Amino acid sequence: MSPFQETKPINVAILLYDQVEELDFCGPFEVFKSAAYEAMRIREWEQPAMRVFTIAQQPGLIMTSGELLIQPHFTFENHPPIDLLVVPGGNDDPQVQNPVLLEWLSKVVRHTEINASVCTGANILAKVGLLDNRKVTTHWSNLDHLAEIVPTAEVQRNVRWVDEGTLITGAGISAGIDMSLHVVERLFGRAIAEAVARYMEYNWSENAT
Amino acid sequence: MSPFQETKPINVAILLYDQVEELDFCGPFEVFKSAAYEAMRIREWEQPAMRVFTIAQQPGLIMTSGELLIQPHFTFENHPPIDLLVVPGGNDDPQVQNPVLLEWLSKVVRHTEINASVCTGANILAKVGLLDNRKVTTHWSNLDHLAEIVPTAEVQRNVRWVDEGTLITGAGISAGIDMSLHVVERLFGRAIAEAVARYMEYNWSENAT
Repeated sequence: MSPFQETKPINVAILLYDQVEELDFCGPFEVFKSAAYEAMRIREWEQPAMRVFTIAQQPGLIMTSGELLIQPHFTFENHPPIDLLVVPGGNDDPQVQNPVLLEWLSKVVRHTEINASVCTGANILAKVGLLDNRKVTTHWSNLDHLAEIVPTAEVQRNVRWVDEGTLITGAGISAGIDMSLHVVERLFGRAIAEAVARYMEYNWSENAT
Repeated sequence: MSPFQETKPINVAILLYDQVEELDFCGPFEVFKSAAYEAMRIREWEQPAMRVFTIAQQPGLIMTSGELLIQPHFTFENHPPIDLLVVPGGNDDPQVQNPVLLEWLSKVVRHTEINASVCTGANILAKVGLLDNRKVTTHWSNLDHLAEIVPTAEVQRNVRWVDEGTLITGAGISAGIDMSLHVVERLFGRAIAEAVARYMEYNWSENAT
């Protein structure tokens, strides 16, 4: 069973910050915006099944790690309620020491249904305690670091994602696409996840635990 | 042999327009910006091997098909010289009827080394004659349409990309990542393309013709 009402669009928020990795946020964005329309089309719903938007601390342009420029839709002060939060990776160092972001995150995750990370985004979720005593994964270059900063977590190697119910962590960069397709399957069923993968011409890697 | 000087960064331009498909431009962006650094690291060059930037007709924000907001780096009027042009897909209908874009494109492709399309971006390259008498591909849903609008082209089905030297066309959405990795291999060699795929944790699909 989906934890969500099938008639109410699911609010998917993707966190942005300076030096975020491009595909970490854009892969999930592509999957969820496509799922919004594939679910509507296949289930003959009257409205898109998801609303996908970006959030950043401040209203100005975000510069990604490769210097792509993104205008966030909302700030920490004015965003809609969030059902599913996606925290991408990138240069997370400044963010795990950013008290404004961590305060916002620790408040917001009390009300979300699912919190997901891609790549080193796991380091950010770790800072608000979400990874304690959970099975988790991250980019291969960050596995040892994550095990160090969250000693109670069981860090999983050689998986594309780990689904722990309210927490889902993805491996590096492209694995965010595989993880997002899994979330679509969980929320809307296999047929819609497969329709999204087919639309995207994506070879879904499903070697999760 | 690479057609480029290995000591001079290659200018990679990604065209943006309203209702562009997110992963069509972001996949190649991720590959090329990663290749810029992987090539520098592995070959011990002193500067990034590529410079990746976005270009749009006008200076304002671009809204993608899923309403992501992107600020292009340059306009048609002020962009640097282009070695490799990437034309992503999306809602190409307004662009194939856009005289300003087509005039810019027909001029710019005279000086580029490689022109590449992802997905329905092929329809845009077709409008300036680049696909005439070539083997080409596109998103599966656009194969028949492309064969119709370019009767002299040999449209290839069930491939991830087609490399015709100065023209490279990719299949749908995610195939832009596979195609871009192929371009990286062509320019910098297999080891660097594999290093990029490994960094991105991407399972490279190589079923090209």
